[in-house]
Amino acid sequence: MTKTDEKRDAQERGVFFRLLRRDKHSSARAGILSTAHGDIPTPIFMPVGTQATVKTLTPAELHEIGARIILSNTYHLYLRPGAEIVRGAGGLQKFSSWHAPILTDSGGFQIFSLAELNKIDVSGFTFRSHLDGSQHFLTPENVISIQRDLGSDIMMVLDECVPYPCEYRYAKKSTELTLGWARKSLQAVSNYPPVHGYAQYPFAIVQGSVYEDLRRYCALELCELDFPGYAIGGLSVGEPKEALYDLTELCAAILPPEKPRYLMGVGKPEDLVEGIERGIDMFDCIIPTRNGRNGTVFTSAGPLNIKSARYKRDPLPLDPDCACMTCQIFSRAYLRHLFNAKELLVLRLLSYHNVFFYLDLVTKARKAILGERYSTWKRDFLLRYTQNRLDQ
Amino acid sequence: MTKTDEKRDAQERGVFFRLLRRDKHSSARAGILSTAHGDIPTPIFMPVGTQATVKTLTPAELHEIGARIILSNTYHLYLRPGAEIVRGAGGLQKFSSWHAPILTDSGGFQIFSLAELNKIDVSGFTFRSHLDGSQHFLTPENVISIQRDLGSDIMMVLDECVPYPCEYRYAKKSTELTLGWARKSLQAVSNYPPVHGYAQYPFAIVQGSVYEDLRRYCALELCELDFPGYAIGGLSVGEPKEALYDLTELCAAILPPEKPRYLMGVGKPEDLVEGIERGIDMFDCIIPTRNGRNGTVFTSAGPLNIKSARYKRDPLPLDPDCACMTCQIFSRAYLRHLFNAKELLVLRLLSYHNVFFYLDLVTKARKAILGERYSTWKRDFLLRYTQNRLDQ
Repeated sequence: MTKTDEKRDAQERGVFFRLLRRDKHSSARAGILSTAHGDIPTPIFMPVGTQATVKTLTPAELHEIGARIILSNTYHLYLRPGAEIVRGAGGLQKFSSWHAPILTDSGGFQIFSLAELNKIDVSGFTFRSHLDGSQHFLTPENVISIQRDLGSDIMMVLDECVPYPCEYRYAKKSTELTLGWARKSLQAVSNYPPVHGYAQYPFAIVQGSVYEDLRRYCALELCELDFPGYAIGGLSVGEPKEALYDLTELCAAILPPEKPRYLMGVGKPEDLVEGIERGIDMFDCIIPTRNGRNGTVFTSAGPLNIKSARYKRDPLPLDPDCACMTCQIFSRAYLRHLFNAKELLVLRLLSYHNVFFYLDLVTKARKAILGERYSTWKRDFLLRYTQNRLDQ
Repeated sequence: MTKTDEKRDAQERGVFFRLLRRDKHSSARAGILSTAHGDIPTPIFMPVGTQATVKTLTPAELHEIGARIILSNTYHLYLRPGAEIVRGAGGLQKFSSWHAPILTDSGGFQIFSLAELNKIDVSGFTFRSHLDGSQHFLTPENVISIQRDLGSDIMMVLDECVPYPCEYRYAKKSTELTLGWARKSLQAVSNYPPVHGYAQYPFAIVQGSVYEDLRRYCALELCELDFPGYAIGGLSVGEPKEALYDLTELCAAILPPEKPRYLMGVGKPEDLVEGIERGIDMFDCIIPTRNGRNGTVFTSAGPLNIKSARYKRDPLPLDPDCACMTCQIFSRAYLRHLFNAKELLVLRLLSYHNVFFYLDLVTKARKAILGERYSTWKRDFLLRYTQNRLDQ
């Protein structure tokens, strides 16, 4: 990194994240992330738009819903439509017409879950595309270069996301690989300057499976690298809930308080409020959109399955306490009819509601933190959400 | 029909349709239909919402697009969710939140195309549901009764829609059946009063396959019955284009000028402008929504297939002359990416554009009629639409 780069980097980091309030009784905190495409209040939930679209929803609807940043995927966009096409369109924001912040995941997780992985070594992944079987090579360096083309506001480094369970030996080796890649990524950030004329912030990812010593080691080593932000990866992959919560707490406690913390791929509404309590600022998860497409909706009184015959004549909205468009306009009876009749409209109406529910949840959590009543708010939310469930 | 019924019926008809202008050089005309749920300028295109939803679109979007009346289907809604559920919700408008006019087709066509037809005789259809194989009996009478439950603003009588080609003997017999059913339907309209407290207008349907004498006979006989409106059915089922246009012209010329005329299931943009020239006021067709979901979009310069590689980097909207939301926001390159990536969002964006195109087309046709320049407008439209096609 040159002196100029260092200075620019420091300037960028200086304004990138501001902590506004810390909870007195927990690690919960409220802050604000500033990017070239807008500010993001934290804690925040990022709707998943893997292929440069949050499934079924338009950018205008995402704004209505209160989304402030969405997540896209480097692996997917690299394969289709290709980084060069997105770059030519002026970056992801212009390509998709979501003129607001975007975080791109690196794709390490997708290479494992979707592609046919041929080789993994210190230089990167060799794999075959899940789309056409073509062979590709993704490295810590070219993943940064691709994200420069995509123009995401936050770029995730390449990492190895190990499955659960994972033997200690392999987890240890993998953690070292991820650490080495993080160092290479930071170098790549300097080597490949932004192509769209605005700052893009790289985030490192803490790995280490469910092993506390590995997580601690990985977090401490990454802190040394002084990234603008840090993610906790490799959780919510099948481990027990306590492990998720405990490891989140462990990592968050080590990560620098002045940097944003992102818990990747998490989770259910209850996981968000637990994560926030442990000091997490950012979340992403496919659950609100995927469950919506499967007919499961989130309400303040717990989840509800719209397919159930009990809603056949129900004139109520999904959640009488919800202010979203779906709940203002449509009844459970009509939504159930649409779902049973396999009508596409219902997929977006339920996705809309669920994403709204998630964003409303983090908005309320943030207000509670700012109002110094997070613990009370969390207890009340969980009580209502887990007791007297609609579907029971 | 009692005296009171007759009087009410006459009152309803008095305000139901007003003719505003007739073209000097053709049979094209502009008018206005008035229903309990709103006025409808004619000529009009009715987007198809078979199962009480225009596929992928919300009521708010339909209003944005300029839709004034949508079409639903008695056969489908009778089977699912059931007329009783829709009645209990206060009718189709309240059930679906489309608080505007609705026309319900009777379902005769669907019994042929979807159900397993067991018997057809003078009393009605016996068939098995395409959903669960359950046996049902639909008659001219109960189809009216069901539409009373549904609360549609315009109710279509039950008819037999013969396939093409069809032998003269069968077509003749079928025409008599359809005529007999029309008489029974009118009686049923009296016998089953509205259940939702507003007027619902029954439309008769001219059948007769491609036989001019049968069409003439059927139209003349139906005129005697003095329905509030008339449809031309059984066309656009595979017959040559000239037959479609000639038979439309023949029927429209017989039908009473003071009543609205509806050409069922038609058609392509060029069919609409030809139909309007021949005196048609109302159209419906699945083409804009179905083609949208298949990646074919309509533009002022002809159809365009968004899947084509030629649009890979194309920053233009689908139709640079189109004022719709999709064209204001999204590029061909992005829409092509969404389509190739099988993203649900694209289905609604293309449906939105196509339905907008159809409604924009009839709006322009109406303006041209009112401005006494229909022939010029039609010639210019077809010239641009059929020459120099984008995809050629």
